Amino acid sequence: MKTALDFLFNPRSIALIGAAHSEEKLGGILLKNLLKYKGRIYPVNPKYEKLMGHRAYPSIAEVPEEVDLSVIMRPAPEVPGILREHKGRAKSVIIVSSGFSEVGEDELQDEIRRTGKEAGVRMLGPNCMGVYNPYSGLDTFFLPPETVKRPKKGNVAIVSQSGAFLHCIFGIMRNEKIGISRAVTYGNAVDIDESDLYEYLGTDGETQVVVSYIESVGDGRRFVEAAQRLSRKKSLIVLKSGKGSRGQAAAYSHTGRLAGSYEVFSSILRQFDIREAGDFDEMTDTMKALSFQKQAKGNRVLIITNGGGSGVLAADECMRQGLEVAPLPEEKMANLKKKFPAFYGVHNPVDLTAQVTDEDYRTALGELKEDYDGFLIIALTGLAGITEGLADIVKDFRTETEKPLIFHTSCGCGAGMLVNRVERAGIPVYLSPERAVRGLRALLR
Amino acid sequence: MKTALDFLFNPRSIALIGAAHSEEKLGGILLKNLLKYKGRIYPVNPKYEKLMGHRAYPSIAEVPEEVDLSVIMRPAPEVPGILREHKGRAKSVIIVSSGFSEVGEDELQDEIRRTGKEAGVRMLGPNCMGVYNPYSGLDTFFLPPETVKRPKKGNVAIVSQSGAFLHCIFGIMRNEKIGISRAVTYGNAVDIDESDLYEYLGTDGETQVVVSYIESVGDGRRFVEAAQRLSRKKSLIVLKSGKGSRGQAAAYSHTGRLAGSYEVFSSILRQFDIREAGDFDEMTDTMKALSFQKQAKGNRVLIITNGGGSGVLAADECMRQGLEVAPLPEEKMANLKKKFPAFYGVHNPVDLTAQVTDEDYRTALGELKEDYDGFLIIALTGLAGITEGLADIVKDFRTETEKPLIFHTSCGCGAGMLVNRVERAGIPVYLSPERAVRGLRALLR
Repeated sequence: MKTALDFLFNPRSIALIGAAHSEEKLGGILLKNLLKYKGRIYPVNPKYEKLMGHRAYPSIAEVPEEVDLSVIMRPAPEVPGILREHKGRAKSVIIVSSGFSEVGEDELQDEIRRTGKEAGVRMLGPNCMGVYNPYSGLDTFFLPPETVKRPKKGNVAIVSQSGAFLHCIFGIMRNEKIGISRAVTYGNAVDIDESDLYEYLGTDGETQVVVSYIESVGDGRRFVEAAQRLSRKKSLIVLKSGKGSRGQAAAYSHTGRLAGSYEVFSSILRQFDIREAGDFDEMTDTMKALSFQKQAKGNRVLIITNGGGSGVLAADECMRQGLEVAPLPEEKMANLKKKFPAFYGVHNPVDLTAQVTDEDYRTALGELKEDYDGFLIIALTGLAGITEGLADIVKDFRTETEKPLIFHTSCGCGAGMLVNRVERAGIPVYLSPERAVRGLRALLR
Repeated sequence: MKTALDFLFNPRSIALIGAAHSEEKLGGILLKNLLKYKGRIYPVNPKYEKLMGHRAYPSIAEVPEEVDLSVIMRPAPEVPGILREHKGRAKSVIIVSSGFSEVGEDELQDEIRRTGKEAGVRMLGPNCMGVYNPYSGLDTFFLPPETVKRPKKGNVAIVSQSGAFLHCIFGIMRNEKIGISRAVTYGNAVDIDESDLYEYLGTDGETQVVVSYIESVGDGRRFVEAAQRLSRKKSLIVLKSGKGSRGQAAAYSHTGRLAGSYEVFSSILRQFDIREAGDFDEMTDTMKALSFQKQAKGNRVLIITNGGGSGVLAADECMRQGLEVAPLPEEKMANLKKKFPAFYGVHNPVDLTAQVTDEDYRTALGELKEDYDGFLIIALTGLAGITEGLADIVKDFRTETEKPLIFHTSCGCGAGMLVNRVERAGIPVYLSPERAVRGLRALLR
């Protein structure tokens, strides 16, 4: 049986209340996006007979079927009346309109909560951008895909209270070559909230990682239970904002939900083993690692580097992250000393110096693969001995063992092609040693 | 009078001991780099009469003048003998060779310290890459400039114990469009160390910001005094690695100097008001801000955003960084409410929503410029109302007042051209809200 959230992510038919004829209006951008979707689309606007070549309807009542999804983009004061007309005409509704609790209009927001319930529709929003599903082609975002480009298909779902966060994360995901499975913004959350979305994504076959940006939580107990359930099945990463008093005030004015004490929130997450990212960049690093590779047990890390300083910075970050840069077993150390020139550093980090060749990484990985739980490869390019062939070496390693392996190189310096090949082989690349370690940390339990 | 370090950064004549004929050897890459320099170059190699079309000399003794600088690239065991020959033949020496304390050869290192002193030369290294001065064209790095591209000329000097760090920071500086004034790596520091280099850079007219990557400090008291003196004149940013026991071991095997207790080191920096970056990315963010703009007093920050969620994350980070996101003065709030649509958030952060236009930023900045000490502009692109014209608005603001102003946008989404124009106007752009706040923090005292 289809649930309300199936209708939201995979509707067979969609009405757009507030469709416009031109892309200069948000209702026009959205209509153009929806017209690419394979379902039946019904533009609603009493002023037009046709919009973008498609028949327009004066109201939801005139649309020839009960739609799976209706998207409402009309000024806030009109929304209660529009919702009333939806009784028996739509299974789910996205209210894009803003102008509710986030600007102090609490009564209006209460009215739509009540009216929507009476009309028997499940509601996403208000003050939201709705949903994006690259697998079905559904895209209710009013951001033109030509300028706000969508990430490629993949296994990461984004659940965001904020549209701006989604906008930023789309940019980062494209930059970092992280694929997306679903995206949803839920704004003021009068009905569907993060807990409902976690439940849906827990059973969604295309989603392996869920990134959840939260400004405030309505029902704390329900949230914790849903987050725990989801964390058992998939990787959930929570980024909470509104941490301080000013942040809380800003979060309130943004979605109209009270942010509550961050300290309490964060300690509850820790207690229930729900993963939290400290800031946007940590969220990015964690998401990237979990999207590329599976988690494994253990905390013993081997660092192999051709830059001594980078190895030291990485070792420092391992310590801060509770990862153990354990010494090399004596026997293995003796073996490697025979294989490597005398000036190589045969410790952990293994320091291959500027005289490095690609094959040195294979030698070190081969000798030590059984002795560690996770591996960090640091390869600064621009040296004659580092070539794109290194991508094959790390790929071979990952074929032999599924142990987490992360790659760091510095940007520029002809690193682009190497980075592409390494990432195509399923190994995430990071541009600073500390960020690479944070990625590896996410993969080790 | 010229000091030893002037000879190092602006030599009139250079000998290269261990010059090679081909760029497949480090001694060939380096010779090619040096031949582009305007001073007199003397390749030294007893096996050749000519190298790259230039007369080669069998030893430093045969070179026809006492050189300002000699660069030594011969195997470690030969270095003491070579140094002895330098008596009266060179004012300063860079010892590129590795194979000393960093691989346990402490006696050999003591020997070169003693021998160099007896020969009356100042020494940089061993186990280092030497110096880069884009203003004079000197480049002793054995990294080919075609693959490890150098940053553009600018005001940031890099003082690094590690060559790998330099390699990474070159990539980042090019990526972030940060200009360089000097770069120097000093490796095992048998003679010239960070304190000498701070002293030199304190008087260097092209340098405004000094980034110092340190794995270990020889003479702690001398370091603190030199760092304090430099911090009074210029912006010094210290990045210390070798923080934990494994990091310390790695740092030891990398340069052979003992790293010492990080906690003590860090608390001394705090006590003497010497700026420390926690990791590579914080170093980058701080360096970028200080390279682009001057510091100012105060800690009251105004955030203007077109993305609510980004504003909240920025406000959170302000709190963590001790910056005050102070409420708008009531009168100004009333003025802005008259000028803006009702659904704009007229608080701090000012939320211009997705309906934003460029001119809204001018309106908000104009109204509030006297009320805050630092400004963060968040402009997510891809919306019709955000154009490249925003670059002129922030440029105008910076012309009127020198108060720090930092810019955040998300990557991709046609942001490239806007970012270029904003940065050309002297405003640093950051790709995450928290990193932007860390940049602003560096500019507010």
